[in-house]
Amino acid sequence: MPHIPLDPQLPGIRSLMAYRPETAVPLNALAQTLLRGPSTLAVGERELIATVVSHGNECRFCTGSHAAAAAETIDGGRPVVEAACASIDDAPVSDKLKALLRIALAVRETGRAVTEELVAAARAVGATDLELHDTVLIAAAFCMYNRYVDGLATVAPEDPAAYEQMGKVLAAEGYGR
Amino acid sequence: MPHIPLDPQLPGIRSLMAYRPETAVPLNALAQTLLRGPSTLAVGERELIATVVSHGNECRFCTGSHAAAAAETIDGGRPVVEAACASIDDAPVSDKLKALLRIALAVRETGRAVTEELVAAARAVGATDLELHDTVLIAAAFCMYNRYVDGLATVAPEDPAAYEQMGKVLAAEGYGR
Repeated sequence: MPHIPLDPQLPGIRSLMAYRPETAVPLNALAQTLLRGPSTLAVGERELIATVVSHGNECRFCTGSHAAAAAETIDGGRPVVEAACASIDDAPVSDKLKALLRIALAVRETGRAVTEELVAAARAVGATDLELHDTVLIAAAFCMYNRYVDGLATVAPEDPAAYEQMGKVLAAEGYGR
Repeated sequence: MPHIPLDPQLPGIRSLMAYRPETAVPLNALAQTLLRGPSTLAVGERELIATVVSHGNECRFCTGSHAAAAAETIDGGRPVVEAACASIDDAPVSDKLKALLRIALAVRETGRAVTEELVAAARAVGATDLELHDTVLIAAAFCMYNRYVDGLATVAPEDPAAYEQMGKVLAAEGYGR
């Protein structure tokens, strides 16, 4: 049960955004810019970064909803998302995305875990400055969203179909609502 | 040295905000709403929550700048900030603020560490729903800002006077720039 009175019809972060619209505006704007704004990273690649970080943080709501959004938008769909959550090394994604996912998982632990070696490895397979920046900020932002959702004990649906539906909406409409 | 080319005249998150103005807008808006918007928590109390979380995350830039902002704005000034960073139990702050700081440090670890007991303890000394919400989101947001600042290896000044100056500016002007 949530720690504060939230609309029981709304799951996860959606219940918090309805509760506090003043903070919902910048929270949505940040997600929209990072995950849907102009970028040399595909939407599916960015959603996969969000998913892998949320999975590492064991946030069921964020993992479920962003895994579904990633599955809708990434080449290869759901099996690629599941493989990346299980093991970055073995996932069928580009070497550049693997290197960025390794940086994202370092950020998840602590910013100081992002070593010069991790950054050099990503550059060696083509990562740009802006891709490095956005990867770090997406990972950091999901360390916030995950803690927000779980720190107030919001409701995470049990039914996988609920997440599939959320993924379709996020893929089609983004975070502008 | 930062992992990406940043303006060497700008420290910490300020260099990142200059590098990527599109994400700076929602990042500043979130901080402004949480730390300066209408609230039953004083500005100094909110800056102290930000400071204690940043201190726990060992982020030198955020700890230094927000400790200075808290020292400018909280009753009792710098000694209260230092006491809270050293030990919440022994800090000369209200029981309500102690209970909220304990919740913030739980969020720092993981959202799932915010137990019903911690929430009940805060309510028992007067914390409201909105104060609980904002404490969790401030703590979660600083888990993002800290990782952003350190994950890109931004410059953290050595000179305490630099942070004192930043604290004065943050106290006077907030995050609207």
